[in-house]
Amino acid sequence: MAIRIGIYGYGNLGRGVELACKQNADMEVVGVFTRRDPASVKTQTGVPVYAANDVFEMKDKIDVMILCGGSSTDLPKQTPELAKAFNVVDSFDTHANIPTHVAAVDAAAMLSKKTATVSVGWDPGMFSLMRAYALSVLPDGQTYTFWGKGVSQGHSDAIRRIDGVQDAKQYTIPKEEALSAVRAGDNPELSTRDKHIRVCYVVAKEGADKAKIERTIVEMPNYFADYDTTVHFISQEELNRDHAGLPHGGLVIRTGKTGADGKHKHVVEYRLQLDSNAEFTASVLVAYARATYRLNQEGGYGCKTALDIPPVYLFAGHRDTLIAELL
Amino acid sequence: MAIRIGIYGYGNLGRGVELACKQNADMEVVGVFTRRDPASVKTQTGVPVYAANDVFEMKDKIDVMILCGGSSTDLPKQTPELAKAFNVVDSFDTHANIPTHVAAVDAAAMLSKKTATVSVGWDPGMFSLMRAYALSVLPDGQTYTFWGKGVSQGHSDAIRRIDGVQDAKQYTIPKEEALSAVRAGDNPELSTRDKHIRVCYVVAKEGADKAKIERTIVEMPNYFADYDTTVHFISQEELNRDHAGLPHGGLVIRTGKTGADGKHKHVVEYRLQLDSNAEFTASVLVAYARATYRLNQEGGYGCKTALDIPPVYLFAGHRDTLIAELL
Repeated sequence: MAIRIGIYGYGNLGRGVELACKQNADMEVVGVFTRRDPASVKTQTGVPVYAANDVFEMKDKIDVMILCGGSSTDLPKQTPELAKAFNVVDSFDTHANIPTHVAAVDAAAMLSKKTATVSVGWDPGMFSLMRAYALSVLPDGQTYTFWGKGVSQGHSDAIRRIDGVQDAKQYTIPKEEALSAVRAGDNPELSTRDKHIRVCYVVAKEGADKAKIERTIVEMPNYFADYDTTVHFISQEELNRDHAGLPHGGLVIRTGKTGADGKHKHVVEYRLQLDSNAEFTASVLVAYARATYRLNQEGGYGCKTALDIPPVYLFAGHRDTLIAELL
Repeated sequence: MAIRIGIYGYGNLGRGVELACKQNADMEVVGVFTRRDPASVKTQTGVPVYAANDVFEMKDKIDVMILCGGSSTDLPKQTPELAKAFNVVDSFDTHANIPTHVAAVDAAAMLSKKTATVSVGWDPGMFSLMRAYALSVLPDGQTYTFWGKGVSQGHSDAIRRIDGVQDAKQYTIPKEEALSAVRAGDNPELSTRDKHIRVCYVVAKEGADKAKIERTIVEMPNYFADYDTTVHFISQEELNRDHAGLPHGGLVIRTGKTGADGKHKHVVEYRLQLDSNAEFTASVLVAYARATYRLNQEGGYGCKTALDIPPVYLFAGHRDTLIAELL
């Protein structure tokens, strides 16, 4: 019998989860839950749509609820709340607040004897796994995380709010010199400016002062002032044609030393290049939904993270198959 | 109190384990076990040396025994045998025989209520983890494993056995064209010859027939005939100076598709570049020795692989630290 999945929130991420479940024969999406009028929402694969407020009526019809809201206001409330009645998975990604989130969700899930897996995606998620494995194997070393090449939606939004800007897309790109120095095992001290550049494609409104827009972007505190930022003005047609997607990715690199006097250097590098940020995150959520269901069946209650879950739990097949074919 | 480690077998790997334990404050090596005369063996850090035959006398003084013998004849016997009295970790790497090995070790460890972790190193081991995670997250895709640039000791030995050869070193190197095609998401069908080249540095004995040596290498079945192989004749001085180390490494790359009609491509790439094959493998063994000890304390008996163990068990510190700092 398939694992019955609910999708709570139906934006880019929720839509990605719906499609990702199609790629997994052991998964079945039984409902999408939205705060919009359900009659106004049409799903991609014909999954029924329910009002978010009615979610608890589906308590016995869903094995795992995948939460697809945002980290700033949705998930801190929704994940603990839904963990009172469902096994849940989320991609909460405000790094500094993860311990608080884990504690709140754990309290709810322990009471309800449900299992919750939080902060799975690619960072946090796959990148966290890589940082943890590499640190554990090479304790004498240094870890670096780079993001990009990819679209930062927060930075794109910040540009769009500038007077005279019609549309914009911002790419975060790791600096090649920084990657080379890290890979060489030089353990460089890297400032914010050393690690990434920011490249902006901006559509100016007719008659707007482009020089002023560029200056406003480049000098914007927090978002751009600490980076080398390049601004390209292009037409709306060009933006639509060449910058429609939301690709992302990045690298985790750890270099470490072993042996007498640390004479041997080692480089561990994990790289993701994703055409669709949301769809890859959705795919990670779905794999962890499987793990969450299995853990709950075994009595593994409470809040888990990617670090707590044996890799074999993510795999659709049997452990023996994985050992025989992949080990 | 530190985890008390025993090292069974004292070649390159055993020596690497001894040094790796020095990098982990929660580990203490209490003894090295050798089939040689213990009086003839001097350890690098002053660890006492015992006869392998006396190992069971140390039953209560060792928390985890790390087995450092070879996969062809040592480990298939030693790991199940020692699991009768010790928690054990090995790097058994004959892929085809892993299921049999797991079964034999599991039977022994379940009886003794010990925990055994087998086949940890980098392949099998870290590479297995990467294959399993990537497959689980991107079920619609293809995985490729490449080895090198690195020294293959088996191939180097095969060259040394040729008449007229004094010494030799063989490097396995992934083909750049193959890596590019895989990274591009083309899902290429790659033959053995397509994936790797073999480069040999050979010292010929005085007066030896170099043309004949080269032909013998290039045409050697199983070892070289299926590859593009290059042979360089150099002096013993050059070999000693430029090819003394045993570096290795490789890549696991999975490309997969998501979304409507699979229109979004994703590339997951894990790369290792290791100055010392043995010392990195030793570092993985030591991290899994910690996990093995913890599992046993919790009653997790029997035979485990890297796929069965939550990442957090490898980390020296507390789970809360890992969640706060690395997630």
